[in-house]
Amino acid sequence: MRELKVELGERSYPIYIGEGLLQEAAAYFKKHQISLKSPLLIITDEHVAPRYLESLEGNLREAGFTVASAVVPAGESSKSLSMLESLVTKALEAGLDRKSTIVALGGGVVGDLAGFVAASYMRGVKFVQIPTTILAHDSSVGGKVAVNHPLAKNIIGAFHQPEMVLYDLNTLQSLPPRDVSAGLSEVVKHGLIWDAEFTAWCEENADRLLALEPDALGYALYKGCSVKAAVVSKDERENDLRAILNLGHTIGHALEAVAGYGELLHGEAISIGMIGSARLGLRYGAPEDVYTTTKRALSKVGLPVKLPEHFDVDAIMNAMMHDKKFSESTMVFVVPTEIGKVEIKKDVQTAWVREIVEQLKLEA
Amino acid sequence: MRELKVELGERSYPIYIGEGLLQEAAAYFKKHQISLKSPLLIITDEHVAPRYLESLEGNLREAGFTVASAVVPAGESSKSLSMLESLVTKALEAGLDRKSTIVALGGGVVGDLAGFVAASYMRGVKFVQIPTTILAHDSSVGGKVAVNHPLAKNIIGAFHQPEMVLYDLNTLQSLPPRDVSAGLSEVVKHGLIWDAEFTAWCEENADRLLALEPDALGYALYKGCSVKAAVVSKDERENDLRAILNLGHTIGHALEAVAGYGELLHGEAISIGMIGSARLGLRYGAPEDVYTTTKRALSKVGLPVKLPEHFDVDAIMNAMMHDKKFSESTMVFVVPTEIGKVEIKKDVQTAWVREIVEQLKLEA
Ligand SMILES: NC(=O)c1ccc[n+]([C@@H]2O[C@H](COP(=O)([O-])OP(=O)(O)OC[C@H]3O[C@@H](n4cnc5c(N)ncnc54)[C@H](O)[C@@H]3O)[C@@H](O)[C@H]2O)c1
Ligand SMILES: NC(=O)c1ccc[n+]([C@@H]2O[C@H](COP(=O)([O-])OP(=O)(O)OC[C@H]3O[C@@H](n4cnc5c(N)ncnc54)[C@H](O)[C@@H]3O)[C@@H](O)[C@H]2O)c1
Ligand SMILES: [Zn+2]
Ligand SMILES: [Zn+2]
Repeated sequence: MRELKVELGERSYPIYIGEGLLQEAAAYFKKHQISLKSPLLIITDEHVAPRYLESLEGNLREAGFTVASAVVPAGESSKSLSMLESLVTKALEAGLDRKSTIVALGGGVVGDLAGFVAASYMRGVKFVQIPTTILAHDSSVGGKVAVNHPLAKNIIGAFHQPEMVLYDLNTLQSLPPRDVSAGLSEVVKHGLIWDAEFTAWCEENADRLLALEPDALGYALYKGCSVKAAVVSKDERENDLRAILNLGHTIGHALEAVAGYGELLHGEAISIGMIGSARLGLRYGAPEDVYTTTKRALSKVGLPVKLPEHFDVDAIMNAMMHDKKFSESTMVFVVPTEIGKVEIKKDVQTAWVREIVEQLKLEA
Repeated sequence: MRELKVELGERSYPIYIGEGLLQEAAAYFKKHQISLKSPLLIITDEHVAPRYLESLEGNLREAGFTVASAVVPAGESSKSLSMLESLVTKALEAGLDRKSTIVALGGGVVGDLAGFVAASYMRGVKFVQIPTTILAHDSSVGGKVAVNHPLAKNIIGAFHQPEMVLYDLNTLQSLPPRDVSAGLSEVVKHGLIWDAEFTAWCEENADRLLALEPDALGYALYKGCSVKAAVVSKDERENDLRAILNLGHTIGHALEAVAGYGELLHGEAISIGMIGSARLGLRYGAPEDVYTTTKRALSKVGLPVKLPEHFDVDAIMNAMMHDKKFSESTMVFVVPTEIGKVEIKKDVQTAWVREIVEQLKLEA
């Protein structure tokens, strides 16, 4: 069992990573003063519920907790205000009060949604995260919670830190392979922005990670969470430093916007985006290995590094220029200067970016 | 011009109370570093917009602010998630970014709604309150913002403190008389829970208040806000002390729940509720004047002190027992022990409360 603490003053909280934590949930809930009197609401999705919900409910009920559950459809479309309204209905019907706790059992979608329910129900109740995807190591640190608006992702939300995060590695065994790789994309990113040694470790242990070996996985998630925690502790409300977490995301978000629904997972899009950032690094004089290592590490964990031919470069550029931080001729990018180190460049030539996006189609 | 500060550490903010502040808004916005670059969104309602929106927009635009406005239907039903979604659409279309400010121009409905938009848009942007009702002196202190759910009022919300509050007494001149009295209900309450001298002042100056004399009104709002600020400063997140603000609200909320829509304004319902609390005080041995002064003060500002005959006492009791803080035989109440002082009693006999509710129909 590994444990790390996200340091945020009064809002600090621990992340527990290990096997079988779902079967020990009640002990952790008690350790963290989750109320036995006020009902809990577990929010999960239809892929996760049949696998893990009964076990969690059973463990909590046996220990004396009052538990209600809500199962939402899997996928991004559940992050909506209308789902928030249904979940509040559920919470009211189950009698949740101000001392109650909302539990997210699932991936980043469930975490973001349940977290916003917790942030806004009665103006804020306690929140526990039980992530069941690799990608959710990212969303379980930092307290960003949100739902989507038809015109914009994650635009309605809050900062709401959990009481604790319980990461049961056993739940990850049922992840579809594509979600495994997509989740590892952010793990690799956390190495690339902060920790060269960890990047090397990811490369060396890529096969064990893809095979979901608990020990490798536990270490990778521990390191990934630690990097994010270090960044977030210094900049909880995303003023400055926190921007480095966006490595690969400027191009990545544009690819997601342009791709047909479901064509690229988030982790896949930012993998391609990180290749673009690495190429940008070269323009700023970074050593060649910034590019080669980035590419090797991402490939090894099964991620795409090449932009599919049919993507329209104009559309991608337009999607990026939508961002008001950018003037017509320059853009802001997180750029690697060496492995484990990035800088925010505010004078990136739009023309360079276009060249690099075109180049991304040619990556071998 | 009067000024007071709500002391909340980093989240402290000033309340300015005076005549003609709407025409000086831009100067205050600049003083408080409201961004000139990022667009503002003013949220108001259809009663307030025709009277004051143009003037505010004009003043801000002249000073170089970029201003968009949204006008919602008047009344409680605008405090909804679907209205939140429309307002976020509006904010996105107007190009609001993370440095933007949401401005509430209106009563408590607009304040609560706009405040929740500000709390959740991009996970929180700045918020300025420009209250135009007397009741809104209450909602402008404490940072509670929320929308309603079909099953419960104010159940989806946040704590989000404004940058400042601009209280322009001139805007209050157009308030319908019933809303004047209803707003004064919370003003009187603030005296009753905290300040005997101010209670006496309210009685003596009731006529000037009802006539909306700016100087009397300015003083009353200043004192009302000060009391609430003092309480909230000590207990921002409603743990304990803040409960004293609920004087009259246990019965009052039940009356609102039982009354036909629109029959009782909130301030009217809690006026009757405060009479009930005063009677409860007598049972706990408070001096007779707790009851007589409460009743005189509320009557003088034009509020009902008698429960209309047709209210069903069983229904009122049921509405109260809904509150899970209550066991079958005892209830929790804010009870005045002398004028300017209250205590939280956790052992109030349900039978007493029923007797008192029945008595409320007999008040002369
Ligand atoms: N809050 C943050 O800081 C933050 C950070 C990164 C991403 N996010 C959000 O996270 C979301 C993406 O997260 P995600 O990739 O975990 O998505 P997800 O929650 O949709 O999970 C991906 C898929 O895996 C399924 N699944 C989850 N756990 C499983 C398991 N153990 N076994 C089998 N199937 C399982 C889900 O049902 C879903 O179909 C996005 O909405 C993104 O905005 C938030
Ligand atoms: N957040 C808090 O701490 C808090 C505290 C108390 C009440 N509230 C909320 O406040 C709301 C009630 O506030 P309210 O009484 O101000 O209601 P309101 O905003 O509905 O205003 C009452 C009526 O007066 C109209 N009006 C407003 N200003 C006017 C003006 N200057 N001239 C003419 N008409 C005007 C409005 O259009 C409305 O019809 C409730 O939703 C309640 O939940 C919140
Ligand atoms: Zn990401
Ligand atoms: Zn009230």
